[in-house]
Amino acid sequence: MNVAIIGLGYWGPNLFRNFSSLQEWSVSYVVDADEAKVARIVSGRTGVAGATDARVVFDDPAVDAVAIATPPNTHRALVEAALLAGKHVLVEKPLCLDPAEGEELCRLADRQGKVLMVDHTFLYTASVEKLHELIRSQTLGDVYYIDSIRVNLGLFQAHANVIEDLAPHDISIFNYLLGEEPVSVSAIAINALSDHLADAAYLTLKYPSGIIAHTHVSWISPVKVRKMMIAGSNRMATWDDVEPSEKIRVYDRGVAVEFDDDARSKMLVSYRMGDIAIPALDGSEALRKVALAFAESIRTGAANRATGRDGLAVVRTLSAARRSVERGGLFTELTNSQVEISSR
Amino acid sequence: MNVAIIGLGYWGPNLFRNFSSLQEWSVSYVVDADEAKVARIVSGRTGVAGATDARVVFDDPAVDAVAIATPPNTHRALVEAALLAGKHVLVEKPLCLDPAEGEELCRLADRQGKVLMVDHTFLYTASVEKLHELIRSQTLGDVYYIDSIRVNLGLFQAHANVIEDLAPHDISIFNYLLGEEPVSVSAIAINALSDHLADAAYLTLKYPSGIIAHTHVSWISPVKVRKMMIAGSNRMATWDDVEPSEKIRVYDRGVAVEFDDDARSKMLVSYRMGDIAIPALDGSEALRKVALAFAESIRTGAANRATGRDGLAVVRTLSAARRSVERGGLFTELTNSQVEISSR
Amino acid sequence: MNVAIIGLGYWGPNLFRNFSSLQEWSVSYVVDADEAKVARIVSGRTGVAGATDARVVFDDPAVDAVAIATPPNTHRALVEAALLAGKHVLVEKPLCLDPAEGEELCRLADRQGKVLMVDHTFLYTASVEKLHELIRSQTLGDVYYIDSIRVNLGLFQAHANVIEDLAPHDISIFNYLLGEEPVSVSAIAINALSDHLADAAYLTLKYPSGIIAHTHVSWISPVKVRKMMIAGSNRMATWDDVEPSEKIRVYDRGVAVEFDDDARSKMLVSYRMGDIAIPALDGSEALRKVALAFAESIRTGAANRATGRDGLAVVRTLSAARRSVERGGLFTELTNSQVEISSR
Amino acid sequence: MNVAIIGLGYWGPNLFRNFSSLQEWSVSYVVDADEAKVARIVSGRTGVAGATDARVVFDDPAVDAVAIATPPNTHRALVEAALLAGKHVLVEKPLCLDPAEGEELCRLADRQGKVLMVDHTFLYTASVEKLHELIRSQTLGDVYYIDSIRVNLGLFQAHANVIEDLAPHDISIFNYLLGEEPVSVSAIAINALSDHLADAAYLTLKYPSGIIAHTHVSWISPVKVRKMMIAGSNRMATWDDVEPSEKIRVYDRGVAVEFDDDARSKMLVSYRMGDIAIPALDGSEALRKVALAFAESIRTGAANRATGRDGLAVVRTLSAARRSVERGGLFTELTNSQVEISSR
Repeated sequence: MNVAIIGLGYWGPNLFRNFSSLQEWSVSYVVDADEAKVARIVSGRTGVAGATDARVVFDDPAVDAVAIATPPNTHRALVEAALLAGKHVLVEKPLCLDPAEGEELCRLADRQGKVLMVDHTFLYTASVEKLHELIRSQTLGDVYYIDSIRVNLGLFQAHANVIEDLAPHDISIFNYLLGEEPVSVSAIAINALSDHLADAAYLTLKYPSGIIAHTHVSWISPVKVRKMMIAGSNRMATWDDVEPSEKIRVYDRGVAVEFDDDARSKMLVSYRMGDIAIPALDGSEALRKVALAFAESIRTGAANRATGRDGLAVVRTLSAARRSVERGGLFTELTNSQVEISSR
Repeated sequence: MNVAIIGLGYWGPNLFRNFSSLQEWSVSYVVDADEAKVARIVSGRTGVAGATDARVVFDDPAVDAVAIATPPNTHRALVEAALLAGKHVLVEKPLCLDPAEGEELCRLADRQGKVLMVDHTFLYTASVEKLHELIRSQTLGDVYYIDSIRVNLGLFQAHANVIEDLAPHDISIFNYLLGEEPVSVSAIAINALSDHLADAAYLTLKYPSGIIAHTHVSWISPVKVRKMMIAGSNRMATWDDVEPSEKIRVYDRGVAVEFDDDARSKMLVSYRMGDIAIPALDGSEALRKVALAFAESIRTGAANRATGRDGLAVVRTLSAARRSVERGGLFTELTNSQVEISSR
Repeated sequence: MNVAIIGLGYWGPNLFRNFSSLQEWSVSYVVDADEAKVARIVSGRTGVAGATDARVVFDDPAVDAVAIATPPNTHRALVEAALLAGKHVLVEKPLCLDPAEGEELCRLADRQGKVLMVDHTFLYTASVEKLHELIRSQTLGDVYYIDSIRVNLGLFQAHANVIEDLAPHDISIFNYLLGEEPVSVSAIAINALSDHLADAAYLTLKYPSGIIAHTHVSWISPVKVRKMMIAGSNRMATWDDVEPSEKIRVYDRGVAVEFDDDARSKMLVSYRMGDIAIPALDGSEALRKVALAFAESIRTGAANRATGRDGLAVVRTLSAARRSVERGGLFTELTNSQVEISSR
Repeated sequence: MNVAIIGLGYWGPNLFRNFSSLQEWSVSYVVDADEAKVARIVSGRTGVAGATDARVVFDDPAVDAVAIATPPNTHRALVEAALLAGKHVLVEKPLCLDPAEGEELCRLADRQGKVLMVDHTFLYTASVEKLHELIRSQTLGDVYYIDSIRVNLGLFQAHANVIEDLAPHDISIFNYLLGEEPVSVSAIAINALSDHLADAAYLTLKYPSGIIAHTHVSWISPVKVRKMMIAGSNRMATWDDVEPSEKIRVYDRGVAVEFDDDARSKMLVSYRMGDIAIPALDGSEALRKVALAFAESIRTGAANRATGRDGLAVVRTLSAARRSVERGGLFTELTNSQVEISSR
């Protein structure tokens, strides 16, 4: 299948490198408004055409699919045009900025019978795969809650605050792990350096199952921390993404509490402190697996881990978070039409 | 001065050991309803009398002060009786359970001209002293926000939930470091193991200065974490209390953001990544310094780091947190009469 | 059985505390030349007599056993007197200073039919037990080599150099893990602060099986490190004794090398990078288990992990190490009569 | 200046990338016997010629310098030919295999008036620069000893044992830090997986100043460790090269020992436990600095950190280590003519 890479900023070259390395794909175009960026890739290479306008790609019937890595505010228009031109679409996160527009894009993809996939790359990392497996296999038992920390110094962005920049990672991972879309979200933002944009925030997500997931995102932490903790009734797991190799730990630890009839007056607590396991993880690049999953969905029509509707669930949560910040952290429900998360 | 130790459960023997080791103090009584606990201390020792009823102590004019380490629900009555009997009082945290009763106790201490001190031991650790110094000396610059994590597996308690058990440490430390009492608090509680009591929670405190402090407390985390991060405009500091010796780190790191007139459209960001310093800390026991500060306040009349009113501020915050949990995490103001935090 | 604790310096009170806590033992005497040290223990306690001369203990037929925690240069005379008086003996490491004297003590114990045990406490820690089990069960496969690091800042001692102070721990652990006594030892000493005594050293031990064990001991390292690594053909293990709880790690990792007929010209190497397991360890105090093993050996006559001959093997290795240092690090054989390590 | 890269295995492409990025250099040739490797670099690039035989380069008078990254056993012949052809030479470590041949190469470079530099890349890392500065500035005071650990699982090599593969890094760093060449070396090798080649080893180097440096190199350790410790009289430093950013730590710690006249009988020891500093390090690539230093030496004639004679000192040490292994670890002197280490 022929794919065109649209947008050659920070992420586009990674898309190019991964799609190029796969037998499933042939990269026929790279597109960017900046001619120099296009030239850097096409010069000395055969089989890859360059373009400064995406319409060239949409008009070429030989192109089966596009991978869009342009700024978020351009996503809606480009995805729509690509779908209307009959192309399968992989788009960088977030799918778009507005939930209503996101719903339209999902419906359009359905009508066109084309695959719409959002590049929530983390879902294809070996770490998230392992956590997902630990939950699905009931190794962790019932999930009590999930806590995430995603903080570092910078990188400040002009057109996205820290919630829009970092929280999509956590939201998409929470949703995938739990197989649910949140009901409501509380978001507390800190504007430490400028009134113009939040640079640290706390988000609390409530899920239909009653599970709570919380994330601390920040651009103003002295140290880079990428940690997630899942407390379960059977076992507990941690994910430290800064660790080069020992990322996931599974703790055979737990606690059982029993109460007498007359409730809190008599409580029996027992602790279990067993072994810790650090599983070896598949080291292959997540983005490569995204490109493979995109091909697989096109071929089979089956859902992947990051369908348009999964991406829409993230957009809806970000939108509710924005309103929660304005309301001083009040828990704010996602807009009424629940997204149907692809069953897993 | 003569002091009586009332309550010989977990903490009382530590009080006894520290007060006994100091020239400033002579322990004249140890009191507990359980005769065996009393006997374990007084047998083979001279100069220390035992009692199973605190009234013996209150009635003895030779006793100058009492250190109360009984369960929280007994504090109010014992502190009141001790003050009325003309004793100086050191009481375990929390001062009491109800803010109104706490205010009465503070006023009673004033009327009696006696010292009322709350044993918020952490305020006398070398780590908190160092963080306080870093803030007061403007080494950190303006404080952006404070983030704390205080999680581990257990120890579940029958008569206190995780907020009442762990959060007083963070609240008292936040207040001491910032020299303020919070305006309002948002508390989200998780009841993972039992509907009867919260076992994990997130608290967000808003201070008059606009600074936000956040703590994650939990009894159901597989690993013990005791970390605090203070982001400041000049430097940033972290405190890892699980580390045996390298507890405090001062990062000469920061970020500066400048905007053009037309706001977010043009943003200049510059980062500073300098050295990290790990200061050597005084290793002496914090509880010993509490006992010394108690003596000093009695002698000089000067405030210490944990006056009755400092303890009251914690009680008021816990009370507001309780109401916030009931209201689904809504930011809840502390009751109207602000506590005057002892100026530092 | 009645035991007397002889020597109340740093370690004696620990012996007293552990023997006192066990039903198997009744501590009838504590002995030290310093009356004050004796008084600190016996005052306020019944059933424990004090003495400033060990002969009192040796002459009392009610005493079954003695635990000797006096300086090393006094061991030989005290152990000999105790055995001659018909007492079972537990003595601090090292058994004595001279191999020939150590052999005499072992023979004397045999003749007297009394238990002679050396307090190599580390052999009774849960960590060493786990490593021993990993080796004996062939979980690690064939042991390739063992590397140990035992360094910190201080504590300098006047009457022992760093080899005599720290290496006995490693030597006794190596011997116990491998079930062998070394054939020869190379020791390189560094006299950084004073010509009078070595403050850092490297020891290499060669075992009859061909296995090599190496330890780096130092009093002049800025950080405390207590690490051991065992490379095996099936798995590899590390022991970090500074870690509060995650001391032992078992790596399911290995490498296989195959050569063609014509040797090094064609080499096939395959690596295995599997999971890491951190086993939960029994938390009970090792010295308590020493006291129990001492009682068990007296009751049953069975060997324990630290018999007189095991202690003698350490003394013989230290003696060879001393000669190796004088010969500039030359591998130096242990004196001719091999010690028969208690079969395990 | 025009440079030719000879050898396009693992390291050659890194040389190409770094030389290409610098204004000081123009890469005019890349050479490898394998045409495909040559094609991979020259195709689509202008200004870079390819060749499968180095003689093409030697015969071209437009080539000023060569960077040789071929297997060690080819170094002598290629370096000699390049110097005879009047080229400046940068050659991968080790300079060559035999000390006598290395001396000839150094003399030849002198006679030809050409720069001979060995790519001991580590000497140009920010970490080694910082350690060098700490020593030269007397921040550490007198160096007591240096301990290095360089272990991991693999990568086994067919034509070099673990000493030849890993120890050159430590030897070159030790020499550079101390400004000396070792007098003698003891090397103990472990052949765990095959009799054909050593896979773990301990090297002890004695320097004219009396300082001892020790390294543990291994291909059969479950974890990758790259640590160096320098104990000094004023301060101590550690280098952890596996740490992504906090590589160097400077400990304001030390110990002072004083003895009475009658030697060891009375010893006064005092410890200093001050702050720890983690300096921020320059993040630029070391190999880039090697290429710049090579250009600088050609331009100015001044020595750099890794002259031919510095590389020869490493070859001489490896040769002595080989003989020490054969003699069972005996300290073995370097061949009689001491290398004059470039003064720093």
